[in-house]
Amino acid sequence: MTMNLTIFDTTLRDGTQGEGISLSAEDKLKIALKLDALGVHYIEGGNPGSNSKDIEFFERIKAYNLQAKITAFGSTRRKFSLAHQDANLLRIKESGVHAATLVGKSWDFHVHTALQTTLEENIAMVYDSLAFLKHNGIEAMFDAEHFFDGYKHNPEYALAVLRKAQEAGTDWLVLCDTNGGTLPGEIHEIVSRVRTELNAPIGIHTHNDCELAVANSLAAIQAGARQVQGTINGYGERCGNANLCSIIPNLQLKMGYNCLPDDKLSLLTGTARFVSEIANVHMPVGQPYVGNAAFAHKGGIHVSAIMKDSKTYEHIAPELVGNKQRILVSELAGQSNIISKAQELGLDVNANNEKTKQIMERIKDLEHQGYQFEGADASLELLLREAFGEAEEVFTVESFKMLVENSQGTLRTEAIVKLNVGGEQVYTAAEGNGPVNALDNALRKALVQFYPKIKQIHLSDYKVRVIDEKDATAAKVRVLVESTSIDNTWSTVGVSSNVIEASWEALVDGIRYALLNMGKLDAIDVPVTEQHGLVNH
Amino acid sequence: MTMNLTIFDTTLRDGTQGEGISLSAEDKLKIALKLDALGVHYIEGGNPGSNSKDIEFFERIKAYNLQAKITAFGSTRRKFSLAHQDANLLRIKESGVHAATLVGKSWDFHVHTALQTTLEENIAMVYDSLAFLKHNGIEAMFDAEHFFDGYKHNPEYALAVLRKAQEAGTDWLVLCDTNGGTLPGEIHEIVSRVRTELNAPIGIHTHNDCELAVANSLAAIQAGARQVQGTINGYGERCGNANLCSIIPNLQLKMGYNCLPDDKLSLLTGTARFVSEIANVHMPVGQPYVGNAAFAHKGGIHVSAIMKDSKTYEHIAPELVGNKQRILVSELAGQSNIISKAQELGLDVNANNEKTKQIMERIKDLEHQGYQFEGADASLELLLREAFGEAEEVFTVESFKMLVENSQGTLRTEAIVKLNVGGEQVYTAAEGNGPVNALDNALRKALVQFYPKIKQIHLSDYKVRVIDEKDATAAKVRVLVESTSIDNTWSTVGVSSNVIEASWEALVDGIRYALLNMGKLDAIDVPVTEQHGLVNH
Repeated sequence: MTMNLTIFDTTLRDGTQGEGISLSAEDKLKIALKLDALGVHYIEGGNPGSNSKDIEFFERIKAYNLQAKITAFGSTRRKFSLAHQDANLLRIKESGVHAATLVGKSWDFHVHTALQTTLEENIAMVYDSLAFLKHNGIEAMFDAEHFFDGYKHNPEYALAVLRKAQEAGTDWLVLCDTNGGTLPGEIHEIVSRVRTELNAPIGIHTHNDCELAVANSLAAIQAGARQVQGTINGYGERCGNANLCSIIPNLQLKMGYNCLPDDKLSLLTGTARFVSEIANVHMPVGQPYVGNAAFAHKGGIHVSAIMKDSKTYEHIAPELVGNKQRILVSELAGQSNIISKAQELGLDVNANNEKTKQIMERIKDLEHQGYQFEGADASLELLLREAFGEAEEVFTVESFKMLVENSQGTLRTEAIVKLNVGGEQVYTAAEGNGPVNALDNALRKALVQFYPKIKQIHLSDYKVRVIDEKDATAAKVRVLVESTSIDNTWSTVGVSSNVIEASWEALVDGIRYALLNMGKLDAIDVPVTEQHGLVNH
Repeated sequence: MTMNLTIFDTTLRDGTQGEGISLSAEDKLKIALKLDALGVHYIEGGNPGSNSKDIEFFERIKAYNLQAKITAFGSTRRKFSLAHQDANLLRIKESGVHAATLVGKSWDFHVHTALQTTLEENIAMVYDSLAFLKHNGIEAMFDAEHFFDGYKHNPEYALAVLRKAQEAGTDWLVLCDTNGGTLPGEIHEIVSRVRTELNAPIGIHTHNDCELAVANSLAAIQAGARQVQGTINGYGERCGNANLCSIIPNLQLKMGYNCLPDDKLSLLTGTARFVSEIANVHMPVGQPYVGNAAFAHKGGIHVSAIMKDSKTYEHIAPELVGNKQRILVSELAGQSNIISKAQELGLDVNANNEKTKQIMERIKDLEHQGYQFEGADASLELLLREAFGEAEEVFTVESFKMLVENSQGTLRTEAIVKLNVGGEQVYTAAEGNGPVNALDNALRKALVQFYPKIKQIHLSDYKVRVIDEKDATAAKVRVLVESTSIDNTWSTVGVSSNVIEASWEALVDGIRYALLNMGKLDAIDVPVTEQHGLVNH
């Protein structure tokens, strides 16, 4: 019999404490809908007592009929005051949520140092506040802040706080490792003790300061916790919250628990990438389960084994979480990598075929010049498709020019491009805050009238690497450009002794790849006006 | 009594399997010296049997007197062949290392599917290869690939492989979770079983596919393993290897083991950042222990509690790992470093002096803009000398212009500079094979008549780094330029959203530093002729 677990997502609340993460009410709405589609049980939307953006979110989300419960977050009442007069608690009530989480102290040191009140008053604050929610018909969760640190210093007080929360009718006791400093063994031991002492169901909320948030969540579940709190991609303050994108597949695929409804797990990778796009945070390629490199294989021996049987070097089938296998091509690897990449694209390759030999030679030659395709699948795909006559020439570059001028401290950067798009010459110019930005602007400006969908893609990463450092400025540089559309990410490469030329090559390939893959025909009939900025072409 | 553990770093070998990571022999040398300073016990340098770059590394590292043992990596001999005729094993012997790791199969499925040989032959391969190392006086480590998967499928065979490795005299049995799919509880149980069955000391080598590599390493140590293998920043294939930057402080600060010599732990953050710079991989701000946000506090409540007592929201004192607390947006990064640098230059600084406060403010502001002086002492020295009125203005830039033009495939790059050198205006132009090269050529051409010694210096390294990847081509870049004269090497930095401007800034600083330090007076009387290429100025 499979045990059901409850997934509590706090991306929209604790996740936004992460450095550089800021979500508008509209962003929150989009993410909430995506989380609901994934099948999480609770979506913590924010703190209605702390900012108007969150109040707007709670208001707007009411229009949607979600499966997930939207929850609000707040603190226990202020010391020596009345719960039903507490502004923060009243805001939660007014937000119209059916469930809410209240954070309160369970570490005596914090009661003295941070709250600066008595141990008794803190317990009263917890009791009154939870009782207020229950009295108003709101499902109540008690977030016991610093519970594990508190328990280690004064177990009796920490347990007494929980007991009072239970007495107030809390629906969940959520044990928080707020500073992220606890080890899995300690978590297991302490959660086990709480289970023997209390009856309310237990939740676990961990942080990643020791790179143990996932392990700590699993340890708590094994000790009897039934709710896991975390965020998509592990966003959160300092080192982040527990990453639901790793916790859910670990629990569901490896430990036999039920977290998400049937068939929803395969939405995980798409959800993770969507949230990273909306939050405008670059997703590490190596992120477990959902990263672009999570099932990427580089070494030649690995690849030849993978082709014999995927289980040799994959701990799960990537499709289970909506990800996919990628074969990376690198100097270390043999031609089997390229063949399997071509097969993935449905091209007719095998080691004995003449065309295959030619393309192998070409790739070997390019690698010798400094190209590296392991981080640039899209460039490799273009090369392979071209070799097999399957890449239509969507445009050709006749010339480009790039000018940077600094006179008396004033900097001006402009790019001029001349393209041939299906027989028509387009000649235009654009400025930018740097040479690559100017080239990118000019290229898009020249193409947008033919391919309006180009507006949906943007550059999401740009890397420059000097290949042979001995020669310094006369050395070659390799530029990697990552482009992103709403549901896809691809990388292209350019190499030259001239950083501008290398950037241009990678930019052009990034756009060509997009146009080949996003279907250009359905875009052609969109009218183009001067508003698109095409005045000068 | 504190238990000593052995730290085995494989950043230079398994780490380079990470997507986008490629290290030259020179890079490897720099990282090895840094790892040695940190105090790790083994540094795996690479695979002398697979590429010439690694052979060069093993040759060059011999010139250094390291505390750490440099180790080579390779595979067990090929099936049905002789160990002493195996090319890979012979390369290890020839590399001159005193310790080596051999990877071999311990999962019966892999023996059949990947190796395509018999279970008996695989065991013979393991035995012969390790015996070959021992016979040649090389300390031998056996990397039991996929040991945990192998044990779960066929424990008797997996143990039989280890037994044979032990019989061959292996010094360590390293148990690998190659696919990264094993859970901490399983690791603990299986390592415990191995301990009861075998006598050789046990190492643990995990991967992060379930976001559990750190927890798995700790679980193995708790079950009796005595060596941990991992990489700096967790670099490695797919989702990475176990991250030593988290494992070491967890073991040493929280679990009471000895990993690094006294006082070395505080080098951890510096080492992590150095390796990330050399590998040209952006370090996530939230990386546990060593990330820039690992001890950053954002929330108002957190901050006021932190000011009352750091322990309220910090699981360790950040200084223990060489990191620091950050409260506001910006902080005085390394104020003591700056003071000691200034004192080194003989400048009159102390924290109470008004001029010192001003220069601190200026540096804080520059760091906020993206400058980083850790890798650019020469720029820092120029800043400090200027602030104290000790940097004579040897020339000023009136304007520069840089043009890259590609027409029908022909590329032309030229730079035009206008300088004022001691009241005289110099206006000249030069070509280059790239924009930085052209700017460098033009700058030198303008100055060589005044400072002929400029011919003795050249650019020896050029690095570009995108600082904030969110905005891609509109983001800022930081350029580091290393210049070299006969007996000196110095680095300068430039920051701009425009890579050309950032490069120009670093180039100009590199030359200014040289001119201030190499004594300009003794150069002025050297005659300048047209051979110097000054026709056009």
